[in-house]
Order: sequence, then C-alpha cells, then structure tokens
Amino acid sequence: MSQPLAGLIVLDLSHMVAGPFATRILADLGARIIKIERPGTGDDGRALPPFKSGKSAHFAALNHSKASIALDLKSGDGQEIAARLLARADILVEAFRPGVMDKFGLGWETLRTRHPRLIYGSLSGYGQTGPDARRPAYDMIAEARGGVMAETGERGGLPVRLGAPIGDIAAAMYLAQGILAALYDRERNGQGRRVDVAMLDAQLALQSRGVAQSATGGRSPEPRGTRSAEIAPSEAVATSDGRIVLAAGNDRLFEKLCTALDLPLSDDPRFASNADRVENARLLRRLIEAITLEKTRAHWLARLTAAGIPCAPVQGVDEAMKDPQILARNMVVDVLDRNGRKAYVAPGNPIKMSGAEDRTARSPAPDLDGNRGEILRWLDGE
Amino acid sequence: MSQPLAGLIVLDLSHMVAGPFATRILADLGARIIKIERPGTGDDGRALPPFKSGKSAHFAALNHSKASIALDLKSGDGQEIAARLLARADILVEAFRPGVMDKFGLGWETLRTRHPRLIYGSLSGYGQTGPDARRPAYDMIAEARGGVMAETGERGGLPVRLGAPIGDIAAAMYLAQGILAALYDRERNGQGRRVDVAMLDAQLALQSRGVAQSATGGRSPEPRGTRSAEIAPSEAVATSDGRIVLAAGNDRLFEKLCTALDLPLSDDPRFASNADRVENARLLRRLIEAITLEKTRAHWLARLTAAGIPCAPVQGVDEAMKDPQILARNMVVDVLDRNGRKAYVAPGNPIKMSGAEDRTARSPAPDLDGNRGEILRWLDGE
Repeated sequence: MSQPLAGLIVLDLSHMVAGPFATRILADLGARIIKIERPGTGDDGRALPPFKSGKSAHFAALNHSKASIALDLKSGDGQEIAARLLARADILVEAFRPGVMDKFGLGWETLRTRHPRLIYGSLSGYGQTGPDARRPAYDMIAEARGGVMAETGERGGLPVRLGAPIGDIAAAMYLAQGILAALYDRERNGQGRRVDVAMLDAQLALQSRGVAQSATGGRSPEPRGTRSAEIAPSEAVATSDGRIVLAAGNDRLFEKLCTALDLPLSDDPRFASNADRVENARLLRRLIEAITLEKTRAHWLARLTAAGIPCAPVQGVDEAMKDPQILARNMVVDVLDRNGRKAYVAPGNPIKMSGAEDRTARSPAPDLDGNRGEILRWLDGE
Repeated sequence: MSQPLAGLIVLDLSHMVAGPFATRILADLGARIIKIERPGTGDDGRALPPFKSGKSAHFAALNHSKASIALDLKSGDGQEIAARLLARADILVEAFRPGVMDKFGLGWETLRTRHPRLIYGSLSGYGQTGPDARRPAYDMIAEARGGVMAETGERGGLPVRLGAPIGDIAAAMYLAQGILAALYDRERNGQGRRVDVAMLDAQLALQSRGVAQSATGGRSPEPRGTRSAEIAPSEAVATSDGRIVLAAGNDRLFEKLCTALDLPLSDDPRFASNADRVENARLLRRLIEAITLEKTRAHWLARLTAAGIPCAPVQGVDEAMKDPQILARNMVVDVLDRNGRKAYVAPGNPIKMSGAEDRTARSPAPDLDGNRGEILRWLDGE
C-alpha cells in the first residue's frame, strides 16, 4: 500500500495561510500539489515572518512538498496553461474573494461543464453566498465575529486570539474534509462537486457547547482563564519554575491529589463533592498553589503522574518540539533544500495510517515559478 | 446527487466530545452513525451541561442524527451483536485508551483479518505509540502540552484555554480527514486502513508558525492579546458599548482608516510605514480608542465597512447565532424531538456542497439504547 491520495493532482490557487494549510493536509496524505501563483510576487505567504536565509520559514512549513508555476490568469498564455493543467487535475483549491475566479473564466459553473470530474474547493471569509459574501476577512475577523474570541481570555479580562490562527485553520480543515468526501463520492458516481467553506461558518461549527448554552436560555460562555466550569480542580497552577495543568474529576482522584500534594482537604466540607469544589474553585486553587509553588514543574509532574492524576506542563512550542512523546510520534519533520540537506522544519502529519509511511522529511517548498519547466514537460509528455 | 457519504455505516464506540465531534462531521455528510454505548450510563457526554428538560443540550448538539444501541462488550451477547454490526460497517470509530479495544477482542489486528474493508479510526490523548500512549489526557492537557495555551492570553498575562475545546476538536477534525482519505483509497484498492490520531499530535499540527519561529532560533510565540505581531493596527479596540476588531494592513488602508476615524495621523512619522506602526502599536491603539470609545460598536462597524476597512464585532456566540450572515449560511440548525418539534439547536454543516441539500433540521440525538429494536431488525432482515 502507499499514501492514500497517491496519484491525485491538486491545483492550488490559494495564498497566505488557510488555503495552503488545506493543501498541505492533502500533500501529507500523498497528493501532488501544483501552486499556481501570480507572476512577480507570488503567494503573499512568501512574505510571512520568520525568515531564514532570506526566505520565509513559515511559508516553508505550509508549502513544503508542493510545486510552483507562475501564471498570469488574465493573459492568453496563462489561461492556456491553466486549461491544460485543469484537464489533468482532480482537485482545484482557491481562496479568492467570490467573483474573482469568474473574472479569470475559471468559475465553477464554467469548469463543471468542461471538467465534470473536477472537485472545486473554495475557501473564503464569509462563503459564496449571503449578504457579506464579498467582504474581506482575516483570521482575526473570523475569530471575533464567530464567537470564539469573546469566550477566550482571563476571567473578567479582555478577549484574546488563539496563539495558532484558528480562524484560518478551522476553515482549512473543513475544506479538506469536504474535498475528501467529494473525492470518495466521485469514485462512486463519476461526478465532481463544488465545496464552499467559509471562515466564519467554521468558527461557529466549533461551538457545540456555546450554541447549546446560548440556546438553553443561558448566555454565551465567558472567558474563564484555564478553569473548567464543570470540574474542580481542573486548571493551570503555578510551580516554582512554570505552570502545569492538573485535573481531578471525581472524589477518588481528588483524594489521590490531596495525598500527592500532602494537602489535608479530603475531609474538608468545602471540598467534599465536585459541586462543592467548583463552588470554591478559587480558594481551592490558592491552597493548591501554596504547595505547588514550593517545588519545580518537573517535581510535581513526576509526583502527580505517579499518583495517576492527569497533568501536563504548560509548555511553549519550543519545549513541545523536544517533548519525547511528540518526537516518538514524528510530529516535527525536516524540510529539505534542493541538495537534500535539512533547511527548515514543519509540523508532521498527525494522521498516522497503516500502510502509509510516516515520512520524517519533506521536499522543499518551491521557489516562485520554480517548477515551470518540469510542469510544462509533464503537460507535453505522456 | 445526494449527500456524499450516503449509504455508509459508521460504528461509533467513542464518548464525550472528540469522537462524537468526528462522527458528527460524517453524519452531516450523510453517513449513518450507530453509537455503541455502555449499558447503564452510556456515553459520559450525556452528563455534559447545559441541560434542557433533563437532557444534555450539549450532547444533543454533538450526537443528533445518530442511533444508539447499548452493548456490554465483555458479554457473549454484546460481542455477538457487535460482530454482526461489524460485518455491515464501513467505518469504526473508537476513543478508548490504547489496549481497551484489544481486551474486548476488537483490536485492529483482529478486525483487519475478519473485515479487511473496515476503516478503523482511533482517537486518543497521545496516540497508539510512544512512551505516554497509555496515559489519560483531556482537552486542557493537550492544549497545555502541545504549546497552544502558552501562546494564548493577554500580553504579559497568564496562559488561557480557548473558549471552544480545540484539544478535542483538532483531533476530531484530523480523524475525520484520515477516515475520508482511507475511504477514498478503499474504493481504489479494496482495503481498509487503521487511522491513529492523537490529541497532542493534533495540537502541534496547528502550529506551522510556532514551529518555524522556534526553529529559526527564536522563542515560541508568546501571548499577545489580540494584537498582530506583523501588522498594525490589527487588534481589538473598545467602543462605547463593546469591542470591535479592525485591521489596516497597508499604507492605503491606514490612510482610509485615519479618514474614517477623523484621526490626523497619516503624516505622523511615528506611523509612516507598517513597520513604524508595529513599533508604536500600543500608542496607536490608544489614539484610536480615544476616538472609538466615543461612539457605539454599530456606528464604527458601519463607518469602517463603508470605508473598506476589514472589521468585525467581537461578539459572543449568542450574538453570532443571530448574525445575518451566519443565518444566511444556515449555520444554526434545529435538532428535532421524536415528534418532529424543535427541541435543541446545533451548529450547521460548514461544508456546503453542490448536489447535497444543506438541511435546516436534524433528527434527534438518541436515547441510550433507543434504537436497539430497529437495529436488531435491520441485522436480521435484508
């Protein structure tokens, strides 16, 4: 067996983060991705910091294993090459504002007639329909309007963004799912489909609990720091050299926690049941921190783990990249340069699949138009 | 045409949030989901607040459109029914700790021999391999250890969790993708696959930028509130009755913003270029807020939108659920009761697809064991 998407051709007209994130998922599953970029500057994601040796390391992490050809889609020459690529493609991904692809003569209604098996994936801020369809949006806009930002932050504090761009990423994930479902269905009925995913819609889709809570007469969830609304203790606490999260979701675990911390609370009526502990969660945290602050993160993680208490360090990505479990799972992969040397790193593929090699390195991200010759030869040949 | 996954049978042995979130994606795409629950209490997600008429509204939002049968997988009777269901199933989803399915005689190595076409999806905290494979994890644990929490929060403040449970959800999304890719491939080669997704791995996969930044000699991204590190202004600002986000990513937009706010800064050398504005972002926000605080959110959104400045309200889920664009996109759907009356609501399907009806209502979430008779008749019949 091999990678599940081996042999599939994806034309990627997207740019920046969301579209390239979606096609990276397809690349990690074995599809061949051809980026069609604007001549001159190409994908704006090429300018995303941080840089290494003058090139964007962020772009490399999102676009490794892809090929690039620069096409002016307003010119006859660009259109002609695009048409030849489309005749070979299984999937098209685009992230322009609605209407732009039509101007290039590459709208879905046009292409579905010419290429009935093509799967046409569109990612946009607000979707192809609705009053705001043509408005611009970014990650932050989707996080704010979709409700996630307002429920994220310290208790009583300001709304904050997620460290990772979830406005982009959630839409990318749903686009990948829609494309894959359409691909399966195409094997049965021979027809491609249009997949239309909006960043704003994707934010709402994350909020099963928020939607349920708002609809049952309550208000939206509010920022709570790291503390659970339903279980106590379940939050981050400080140690002498950093923070850890811990959770004790039932009386038995709470008793084990008290033993591990040498904290004589298991007979205290203020903390008798989980409901009592939720009621007095703030006091409980202070009592716990009065102890955890005395020793290191490593000390407490070892002790709580031995006692069977779910716990983890609050660690930065830099620490996570050295975490033995992350390394054992091949979740940080090398991105090679054209000489086969390690040049950048990227997140690995979190979809581990039997029969598909979990590769430890990836081909380079392409230079702008860097694969023109080989792509044109491929179109001419075979 | 119809829903892309119409006709597929999914056995769902998962519980709580992550697994049911993954199978809800498959349900929204047309698959038939049969929950196999523990007799007595069933899926622990049935106890998730908030409640309505004594039942969990959160459970309803995650498990609508599914059927339920209670099976004691340690008993001969339960095993026999499970075996008959497996003979009909396309996909199995489980979220036990590694090793538990083997104890039931339902491990992948056993089932792949008996049901070579079965796609076997496993979701766990740490994955099926690695030193911590058998340790317990929750949403918060994955967010903390995977690096997302440490980069989320106010500037200089404490790490916080995302309002939506991204530790669960990211893994659910990748599991759905892996299953769909395996399903496509099965159509070509006839073989099922094992898909192994870990919550911790999925957190790292979100962090293309964090990984790039850490690896290029920098440190992990740190909490920045809502402010962009690369563009200014691009963050949330206060108005007289709530917050909005706005972004002006280039000089032309900044000039338009100054005009819209009546703020004479476009000739000020401290704000001449984007680099200058990033350098003086804190001062810039104060100058903007001195103006935006004078009028309402609605006033500024109308004015900035007219000026072509990307902007949005920082709104709660309750407001998002009434947002005209969200409504136009059918992103809040009714969950019916058994009499066809509206009983709960759930997020809609963010994957809009040609040829597939975007349904405005969903069948009820099942009572525990609520579909036993019909499932057994189906196994006997046909």
